[in-house]
Amino acid sequence: MIEYRNLRIALLGAGSVGAQVADQLLTHADELAARIGAGVELTGIAVRDVDAPRDVELPRELLTTDAESLILGSDIVVELMGGLEPARTFILQALASGADVVTANKALMATHGPELFEAAGQVGAQLYYEAAVGGAIPIIRPLRDSLAGDRVERILGIVNGTTNFILDRMDTRGESLEQALAIAGELGYAEADPTADIEGYDAAQKAGILASLAFHTLVPIESVHREGITGVTLDQVVAARKAGYVVKLLAICERLSDADGVDGVSARVYPALVPDTHPLAAVHGANNAVFVEAEAAGPLMFYGAGAGGIQTASAVLGDVVSAARRHVVGGPGVAESTHADLPVLPISSITTRYQITVEVLDEPGVLAAIAAVFLEHGVSVETLEQTVPETEPGSEPSAAAATLVIGTHRAAEADLAATVAALTSSSVVHRIASVLRVEGLS
Amino acid sequence: MIEYRNLRIALLGAGSVGAQVADQLLTHADELAARIGAGVELTGIAVRDVDAPRDVELPRELLTTDAESLILGSDIVVELMGGLEPARTFILQALASGADVVTANKALMATHGPELFEAAGQVGAQLYYEAAVGGAIPIIRPLRDSLAGDRVERILGIVNGTTNFILDRMDTRGESLEQALAIAGELGYAEADPTADIEGYDAAQKAGILASLAFHTLVPIESVHREGITGVTLDQVVAARKAGYVVKLLAICERLSDADGVDGVSARVYPALVPDTHPLAAVHGANNAVFVEAEAAGPLMFYGAGAGGIQTASAVLGDVVSAARRHVVGGPGVAESTHADLPVLPISSITTRYQITVEVLDEPGVLAAIAAVFLEHGVSVETLEQTVPETEPGSEPSAAAATLVIGTHRAAEADLAATVAALTSSSVVHRIASVLRVEGLS
Repeated sequence: MIEYRNLRIALLGAGSVGAQVADQLLTHADELAARIGAGVELTGIAVRDVDAPRDVELPRELLTTDAESLILGSDIVVELMGGLEPARTFILQALASGADVVTANKALMATHGPELFEAAGQVGAQLYYEAAVGGAIPIIRPLRDSLAGDRVERILGIVNGTTNFILDRMDTRGESLEQALAIAGELGYAEADPTADIEGYDAAQKAGILASLAFHTLVPIESVHREGITGVTLDQVVAARKAGYVVKLLAICERLSDADGVDGVSARVYPALVPDTHPLAAVHGANNAVFVEAEAAGPLMFYGAGAGGIQTASAVLGDVVSAARRHVVGGPGVAESTHADLPVLPISSITTRYQITVEVLDEPGVLAAIAAVFLEHGVSVETLEQTVPETEPGSEPSAAAATLVIGTHRAAEADLAATVAALTSSSVVHRIASVLRVEGLS
Repeated sequence: MIEYRNLRIALLGAGSVGAQVADQLLTHADELAARIGAGVELTGIAVRDVDAPRDVELPRELLTTDAESLILGSDIVVELMGGLEPARTFILQALASGADVVTANKALMATHGPELFEAAGQVGAQLYYEAAVGGAIPIIRPLRDSLAGDRVERILGIVNGTTNFILDRMDTRGESLEQALAIAGELGYAEADPTADIEGYDAAQKAGILASLAFHTLVPIESVHREGITGVTLDQVVAARKAGYVVKLLAICERLSDADGVDGVSARVYPALVPDTHPLAAVHGANNAVFVEAEAAGPLMFYGAGAGGIQTASAVLGDVVSAARRHVVGGPGVAESTHADLPVLPISSITTRYQITVEVLDEPGVLAAIAAVFLEHGVSVETLEQTVPETEPGSEPSAAAATLVIGTHRAAEADLAATVAALTSSSVVHRIASVLRVEGLS
């Protein structure tokens, strides 16, 4: 083992993840030193308020409000403040000083990743962000290194624990979205303002990060199509289960060609139907899983806790050890590569399967009229199921005489959108109850 | 991107994995070069017989029977011959020359790993072996790097596709072990001599590799306890399913303390009952999955194809890119660490749960006698189910009057063994039909 001076580690932020990282660095210093071949010294923890209550008790003398002084002279800066600023400025300062940076900041990576990689590349520093996607689950390193000799075709990820918890409660306990969200809040799985989770912003950031890495292409967060789960109803979830599907909020990254034959990539987030036999269907509660389809490797899945202070700290510490080992063995780091530089195609370019639930009127020729709309727009129908609603004696008769659940073959999003528009204005249609994409089938 | 001369890659072996690696290196050379920042040149492929038929057509001029000349002057040597010799000698030659080595050779890594790491360390070369365990599944890199700041407590792995295929057929199709093995052979999942798979030798090699890596400790292959699946009967599999379990051949690596309080590790392979709700229970066919429990990260699972030429080639090529990037950026490699140096404890040191099926005679006080045996040996009974066999009219009455299925609480292996020995010699016991360990419960 090489003799080496202690590595100086600065920590920015002492929230639920930061406090755990500090605790582990202090508690397991000897074990970490043995694994690294050099000692690691936590030189300080920058916080906004040194007197704020913490999840874990931390040595008072390590706490400081002066992040900039702490960063200077550090070998490794661990940014766990979250948010865009001042995290971005501090990371740029750290990289400019030659320090390696470890971050769990998905918003920052998705928004300013290229600027940060550029800054790291200029001084040969490293930027690690395993904890930004999938919490404790190793997914960045497998994509960047293990699959570096393969070609990733598609990623289907359950990357937001809050929404998976909610959808899972709706599915397994028959709760409404509002009920499940309230329970998620009580159990600490949802924040006071759950917008970032339930509207899919969090998942979209992760989709952008995964797509950039998997396809060696810059995927700006603005180009990630995003739909949240707020429109998902218990009826949809129950009907999906009956039909052999589970509703999951998926982050999807995929190579595709658009109608003009332009090769590109798509990154998108929406609630989708997943076959109940698919490995992703078995991901319950607030867990995360990333399903990767690669040309040579075939399907792979990475599963585990997607959030939580101590779980995410595991990923952060893995990055700290990687950075520290690199300091010990020397040599510049691996540059982040966007050499493929593929265009990011809009949602209208994708093709997938769809399930459309239409309430129709009791008129002659309804089925033929509906079928004609699909035919006209080039969308091929694979399955069609008709149910007549039971009417309680004495209740108001429904305006709709029957419900049609139509499953399509793989179709273009643009054609499907035109089909839905035409159905909406059809005289035999009472209303479109639900349009959901189906993912995870070949 | 740094300008760099082409990296010279030598391939040893052109079997099902080697031919795919060669094909991908030739087909995707430009893409790989972009990812690495330098060109990669396949300089030759060492084979025993240049005229032998191959899965993939390879350029004749690359084939050679002179491995030693090919190794000299290579930057990266990829060993895919399998077996201990001459693979070991060639790898030592390559490392001595300063080349990095990539191998998929689990037998060699499990048997001579320490010697090879030592040789690599002496010259600052790197030894990569992601493909040695779990085929395409990234598991070595996550354990070595992503979990480097965490503490792995236990690994439960389905790491042999052949036996998982056989046990899955028995479970899902009611085939006997012999029938399922025959079908595995027809489909190419089992070799002509299936001993290495069905007797657990292959899984034991992988258990040794995983345990060494996870616990930073040398785990010699001789210290891995090994039981194969040849004793598993269809009756056991059917009874397990009824009781809410699935029979899986598990590679288990675990930290534990023995009866004297000595902290150590255990690496072992045996068919075990896994609760049907456990993620490993859903691993079907010839797939592999590695379930890792770490102190901070909690449970993680890595799932995918555990074998196959092109799938395994994906892992090999990921290692080739990692090795190539290191050549480009410079610096010595990360040394394999066995600093923890924990003792490997024998199977008698483990504690787990057990399910014992006992056929008993029709005598008064049978239950009390059986219960007394467990009590006497300190094994606590959690569940007991008694079934009376139905006798066909006119058929020979069975010597056994009833069958007891006894589930224990967590017990010491040594105590359980003593209990089984006592049961065997008990006057009320007709025979012990089955003893299986139960894993995956807390």
